Amino acid sequence: MLITIEFLAVLTSAAYGVLLACRKQFDGVGVFTVAFTVAFGGGTLRDILLDRRPLFWIENDHYVMAVMALSFVGAVFPRGLLRLERYLAVPDALGLALFSIVGTGFAISSDTSPFIAAIFGVITGTFGGVIAEIICNEIPSLFRSAPLYAICSFTGSCVYLIAGATTGHENLSILLGVMVIVVFRWAALHWNLRLPNASLDPK
Amino acid sequence: MLITIEFLAVLTSAAYGVLLACRKQFDGVGVFTVAFTVAFGGGTLRDILLDRRPLFWIENDHYVMAVMALSFVGAVFPRGLLRLERYLAVPDALGLALFSIVGTGFAISSDTSPFIAAIFGVITGTFGGVIAEIICNEIPSLFRSAPLYAICSFTGSCVYLIAGATTGHENLSILLGVMVIVVFRWAALHWNLRLPNASLDPK
Amino acid sequence: MLITIEFLAVLTSAAYGVLLACRKQFDGVGVFTVAFTVAFGGGTLRDILLDRRPLFWIENDHYVMAVMALSFVGAVFPRGLLRLERYLAVPDALGLALFSIVGTGFAISSDTSPFIAAIFGVITGTFGGVIAEIICNEIPSLFRSAPLYAICSFTGSCVYLIAGATTGHENLSILLGVMVIVVFRWAALHWNLRLPNASLDPK
Repeated sequence: MLITIEFLAVLTSAAYGVLLACRKQFDGVGVFTVAFTVAFGGGTLRDILLDRRPLFWIENDHYVMAVMALSFVGAVFPRGLLRLERYLAVPDALGLALFSIVGTGFAISSDTSPFIAAIFGVITGTFGGVIAEIICNEIPSLFRSAPLYAICSFTGSCVYLIAGATTGHENLSILLGVMVIVVFRWAALHWNLRLPNASLDPK
Repeated sequence: MLITIEFLAVLTSAAYGVLLACRKQFDGVGVFTVAFTVAFGGGTLRDILLDRRPLFWIENDHYVMAVMALSFVGAVFPRGLLRLERYLAVPDALGLALFSIVGTGFAISSDTSPFIAAIFGVITGTFGGVIAEIICNEIPSLFRSAPLYAICSFTGSCVYLIAGATTGHENLSILLGVMVIVVFRWAALHWNLRLPNASLDPK
Repeated sequence: MLITIEFLAVLTSAAYGVLLACRKQFDGVGVFTVAFTVAFGGGTLRDILLDRRPLFWIENDHYVMAVMALSFVGAVFPRGLLRLERYLAVPDALGLALFSIVGTGFAISSDTSPFIAAIFGVITGTFGGVIAEIICNEIPSLFRSAPLYAICSFTGSCVYLIAGATTGHENLSILLGVMVIVVFRWAALHWNLRLPNASLDPK
């Protein structure tokens, strides 16, 4: 079950990466690199900061092969992928939730404080896209007003940590954290919940 | 005393980050990320390159909380922060000095050569801002003609290393290195000392 | 012999970096940073991902000094360097080949799968330029249609791995891998072999 969600989440992230790279009119090398970065960038950054090795994708090279296959199919038939985009919101929210909780858990077991662990949840869940957009010479969309994404990840990571500390029930806490993130993200999309942009101009 | 300077330096870096992010009209997530990056990016890059763990901010999460608090206050009242900007030159020079000397010392104690150690002083002192500007899709201002900054850091780091090697007096060497950086930076601002830009166009 | 190629490859990478930085009208600090990044960025990223330390350039600081010297000469006489650019294709192809095979070898000896090792060959051979272009706020040219570069590196890295696995002859495999990359790269330049750009626009 978790493996299936994980695989779906990796492929969904990679699909967003393929679409981003096609919008920038990259060639196959660029499409694969961007897809790879969206899919594995957040977890890689987390593991480098926490000094965890070997990296997830180095040990699981079938994930990298799947991303490569998707990249080449996507680079050849990008409009087919574009038609799929509307169905990606659900696996994307599941992926955000799964990666956030896993990242939080890895950080806690590396002896960070709970506050730092929740930040690692956000890094794991969202920074693949940030790094990919930096590579594509775009301002990261995570940093501008849009339906809440990082905040959902942070909230769910905190819920997971609090539930773990109070109940001591690992599986229950994971489930609770994942549910909070998925529901919160759905609510953010549905009611267009967002933070305002800061600005130095007088109002 | 050192702790106070360190805290001031982190807050000053973060304040620059908040202003940069507000100029790019980021939301709260973006403002915090940029502030965090200016404050901790240089030291984090240094520790990753030298393989030192745990990272400074992972062990001292109150610094991260302070940066987060400043980010949210700054995102809500950016014009108040803007009015403070003129007073930031002094703590910024102190922070540049402190971070440079600390970074040089960490590198030397990781068995790098003195030349490489001075480069790590510059990385620690200046690369937080460089990474933040890359994230903001700006050309790093460190790389273009402006009052000397990296050169001050490099010079002071060399002075610190030479003083340490000749006198064997750690505290004296630190003080000397810090003073050189602060005075050199002040001179660079006062007399507008700068390197010229390179150019491929015929003059 | 290998040392000479390595030195040439580092200087060639650095020269590309100097020209890139001069085109962006950077000052001396920027020129050196970009030259450094092109020369050492790929190997540094590889070592961080594989957790290998100390980094190549930390142990060999004469390379860093050579890059610094070239940067300052190049920043002062950029048009002289520009006139040399046409002669850089050969050492560049040699450097791509050498770095790719070395990177693949390091990855294999860190127990990655062959597929991942070939990807590390590409990272080592090509990502210095990618990181440098990201720093310069440019879209990485590696990701857009141009005479094949990453594909040459990947192909030669695979040839090296297959030759090593079948013949067990390390030196022969290195030679074969290097030759494949150099010849393939020459062919890509000569016949303008390239991947097409992906695009979301209807044809």
